[in-house]
Amino acid sequence: MSLINRQIHLVSRPQGEASPSNFQLVEAPVPASEALAEGQVVVRHHYLSLDPYMRGRMNDSRSYAEPQPLNTVMLGGTVGEVLHSRHPKFQPGDQVLGMGGWQEYSVVDASVRGALHKVDTQHIPLSAYLGAVGMPGVTAWYGLMKIITPKSGETVVVSAASGAVGSVVGQLAKVRGCRVVGVAGGQDKCRYVVEELGFDACIDYKQHAEPKAFYQALKAATPQGVDGYFENVGGMILDAVMLRMNAFSRLAMCGMIAGYDGQPTPMQNPALILVNRMKVEGFIVSEHPDVWPEAVQELGTLVGTGRLKFKETVAQGIAAAPEAFLGLLKGKNFGKQLVKLI
Amino acid sequence: MSLINRQIHLVSRPQGEASPSNFQLVEAPVPASEALAEGQVVVRHHYLSLDPYMRGRMNDSRSYAEPQPLNTVMLGGTVGEVLHSRHPKFQPGDQVLGMGGWQEYSVVDASVRGALHKVDTQHIPLSAYLGAVGMPGVTAWYGLMKIITPKSGETVVVSAASGAVGSVVGQLAKVRGCRVVGVAGGQDKCRYVVEELGFDACIDYKQHAEPKAFYQALKAATPQGVDGYFENVGGMILDAVMLRMNAFSRLAMCGMIAGYDGQPTPMQNPALILVNRMKVEGFIVSEHPDVWPEAVQELGTLVGTGRLKFKETVAQGIAAAPEAFLGLLKGKNFGKQLVKLI
Repeated sequence: MSLINRQIHLVSRPQGEASPSNFQLVEAPVPASEALAEGQVVVRHHYLSLDPYMRGRMNDSRSYAEPQPLNTVMLGGTVGEVLHSRHPKFQPGDQVLGMGGWQEYSVVDASVRGALHKVDTQHIPLSAYLGAVGMPGVTAWYGLMKIITPKSGETVVVSAASGAVGSVVGQLAKVRGCRVVGVAGGQDKCRYVVEELGFDACIDYKQHAEPKAFYQALKAATPQGVDGYFENVGGMILDAVMLRMNAFSRLAMCGMIAGYDGQPTPMQNPALILVNRMKVEGFIVSEHPDVWPEAVQELGTLVGTGRLKFKETVAQGIAAAPEAFLGLLKGKNFGKQLVKLI
Repeated sequence: MSLINRQIHLVSRPQGEASPSNFQLVEAPVPASEALAEGQVVVRHHYLSLDPYMRGRMNDSRSYAEPQPLNTVMLGGTVGEVLHSRHPKFQPGDQVLGMGGWQEYSVVDASVRGALHKVDTQHIPLSAYLGAVGMPGVTAWYGLMKIITPKSGETVVVSAASGAVGSVVGQLAKVRGCRVVGVAGGQDKCRYVVEELGFDACIDYKQHAEPKAFYQALKAATPQGVDGYFENVGGMILDAVMLRMNAFSRLAMCGMIAGYDGQPTPMQNPALILVNRMKVEGFIVSEHPDVWPEAVQELGTLVGTGRLKFKETVAQGIAAAPEAFLGLLKGKNFGKQLVKLI
């Protein structure tokens, strides 16, 4: 009797906000070992990563990536264990990182370069390869090191500061001697960002929901202005931080979650880019594979030695993935959002 | 009897649009030769340069430069001839470039580095040192070469295309093998930009005043999208060009004239910076003195050999400066706006 692989398919595109009805649970058989082609590997997923970029893929609009096709398994990063292998480099029991998607098992052509990576779980927990030592961590590293290029003594602000990317941005900037100010939603997240992650301050955008109140709180936390801003959200927070940017400051644009659901979210005063001679740069980490070795080296060392901390919110079982993902878009998660599949 | 120096002072700050009442004509004596201190030079101005940046200086707001103080001579670039000199490097009759301001004569401390430059008028007309071979030309050169970094075959768009900066941007980009599309106000300017300056196309934003019509005209003129945009105006034109920007495109933000008079002009969809992994950079040419020699070398050679063309609108007499300046802010000039003072 073959194993059952439970999958989540995208079955419709959101009109405005994404909703559970955009997804559907589907069951498919897992191929038996003897049915594999040369080079194929079956992976039993332990964790699925949920990330804001997935919301963009749900739309059928021009973007940096192809839309997620309808009636197929939602894409996503996964870690797990090799179950069967017809590739000489992979043995049953190997711990691996891949893009297995929203399902319990995946069949991977391991001969495709980069499709499957063996990972070391002696010093680093398996799930961290989806977070601080994975795509979110490298995203943080790239935006900070290649766009913001922080100098000791400068002030760096990061939004979604308790999240998988933001938490790494801030801790890396602290390692580099910066004053680091986070923006997060809620007292618990702000307390965690300051007390656990070591940021100098964190502004609660829910407490300061009015743009003027938020700006005043930000101003108090950034007495020397802002030299680098790592943007994960857009909207009101972006406008406020723009007003604190110093001459020759840098803005790494990594996410614009505020605009995912429909109408574009304007930037109120783009002339500040000129007034402050700013550099604003958008990036997608997957287009910079050259930095991965250096970034993962630093991130892995910091995690392995306990100097880079992270938090996870873990949903249980593939059926919980849609709800967990919709919660992520509303900031309901705390730290890296995962789905545990074993 | 001493010479009379007629000057224009800023006497009030604009509330919204700038107006003639913000300026006042004042008469002051020109110091006699024997009254000069060691190192001082009296310059008889031939031309005053009028430039959009001056509008920003009229406001009393945080910007990249100090506001123009009230009841003093408006700042501005000038070319002219040395009348008296107590500096060994300058002799009466020398043709010079400086920041003499809105007046007929200036007394310059020539011992201050960069305060006064002798210029060669054998191959290059004196007035060009305020335009194509001066600050506007170097502005064009910097934004194009250091931010847009155009490659042959790419598409470059420039707004205010018939102006002192825009006309140089486009011609330099043509020299580098780009497809060049201008944006200008009116059929005459557009015809000049294409027929005289050699741009591939020019969109008349007055003819296409509706955002959708403007976008359609721009789309037709940029079939391969836009790789580099040199922004002089902001507002509706910026929003439309953003929608045509390609992946990894560059936007040099040089002027935001649309927002000078008051309320900030929003950028409707800043998420496009992320979607297209754009680099957006604001700059002020005076902060990059290191590029001047290389830029002026190329610009001077191109002007001297007739390969870089430019047009001038010349107002007569210092009393005409305020009206000419207000016209410049509304795009009434055609090419470089000067005031002739002799």
